[in-house]
Amino acid sequence: YSGTYSAAADPMWTYFAAIAGQDGEVDAEELQRCLTQSGISGTYSPFSLETCRIMISLMDRDYTGKMGFNEFKELWAALNAWKQNFMMIDQDRSGTVELHELGQVIAAMGYRLSPQTLTAIVKRYSKNGKIFFDDYVACCVKLRALTDFFRRRDNMQQGYVNFVYDDFLQCTMAI
Amino acid sequence: YSGTYSAAADPMWTYFAAIAGQDGEVDAEELQRCLTQSGISGTYSPFSLETCRIMISLMDRDYTGKMGFNEFKELWAALNAWKQNFMMIDQDRSGTVELHELGQVIAAMGYRLSPQTLTAIVKRYSKNGKIFFDDYVACCVKLRALTDFFRRRDNMQQGYVNFVYDDFLQCTMAI
Ligand SMILES: [Ca+2]
Ligand SMILES: [Ca+2]
Ligand SMILES: [Ca+2]
Repeated sequence: YSGTYSAAADPMWTYFAAIAGQDGEVDAEELQRCLTQSGISGTYSPFSLETCRIMISLMDRDYTGKMGFNEFKELWAALNAWKQNFMMIDQDRSGTVELHELGQVIAAMGYRLSPQTLTAIVKRYSKNGKIFFDDYVACCVKLRALTDFFRRRDNMQQGYVNFVYDDFLQCTMAI
Repeated sequence: YSGTYSAAADPMWTYFAAIAGQDGEVDAEELQRCLTQSGISGTYSPFSLETCRIMISLMDRDYTGKMGFNEFKELWAALNAWKQNFMMIDQDRSGTVELHELGQVIAAMGYRLSPQTLTAIVKRYSKNGKIFFDDYVACCVKLRALTDFFRRRDNMQQGYVNFVYDDFLQCTMAI
C-alpha cells in the first residue's frame, strides 16, 4: 500500500499510469508517447521508436519488452543528465553537435576508451557529420547498458571478461 | 582497368555507380536509396535508415561509414538469402512472421543458441508480437556481424573469448 501511495504522490505517476494502462508497464511505443508528452525533448525532435526500444532493453532484465514505473524513473533521471550534457555543447540549440564534441562528452562521463574506439562510436551515431539529440541518447543508453553487462561479469574488476558465445550474443543482440 | 571493366559489365553496377557518385562508395542514406530502387524489398516496406546503418557497419572495417561496390555485392547476396528464408515462413505475404518462427529460422541458419538467448533476441526485434521484414534483416545483419567479431577473436575455436573492455565496446557499439 505504501508503494502505491508514494507513487500516486509523484507528479510523473499521473501520465505514466495513464499510458501504461492496466499492466502498469510501458512497451516501446507507449514509452515513446510518454516521453513525447513529458516534453523532455524540448525543442529537439521527439525520440525515435528505435531509441525507445534501446531504452527499454537497458532496463528490461526479464526480457518482457516492457518497463515499470521504478525503471521509468531511473531512466528519467539518466535522460535529464544526458540532456544537460548535450545542451551544454549544443550552445546554438541547432539540435546537433560536432563529432569531436561527442567524443569529449563520452570521455567526460568517465568512460575510458581508446581514440580508435571513440572514433568508431562517434561515426556510428552521426548523420552527415553531425550528431543529433536522438542518436546521442541512443549512444548513451547503449554505452551504459554494455558497460553494465561487462562490469557484472568482470567480478575481479580486472578490465577483461571471458565471454562464452551464447552469453556474448545474449548481451549484445538485445541492446 | 580489368576491375573497372568487369564492374561495368555487372548489371548492378549501373545504379550503384549512379548513387555512389565520385567516391565510388555509399553511406547509409545512399544505401537506402540503392536498395529501394533495386526493388529487393518487393512488396515489403523499404529498409529503414537504421537498418541501412547496421548494414554499413557489418561491412565497414575501416570505420569510414561507407561501403564500396564489392562490399555491396557481398551484402546483396546475403540479403537475397535472408529474404528467401523470410518468404518461406511468411507464406501469406503479410510482411510479418511469428516470434517462434524467427527462432526457428535463426536455428536453421546454423546459430547454436540457448532457448533463453533466442527468446531475448526474438523479443527485441518484434513489434506487437510480430516480426517485420526490416527488423528481421537488422537482426540477421547483427547476428552475422557479432558472430564474425567473436570468431575472429576465438583463434583456438574454443567457443569463448577474453574481451578487454575497450575492444568489447568497439565491437558492440559500432553495430
Ligand atoms: Ca520487463
Ligand atoms: Ca549545434
Ligand atoms: Ca505473415
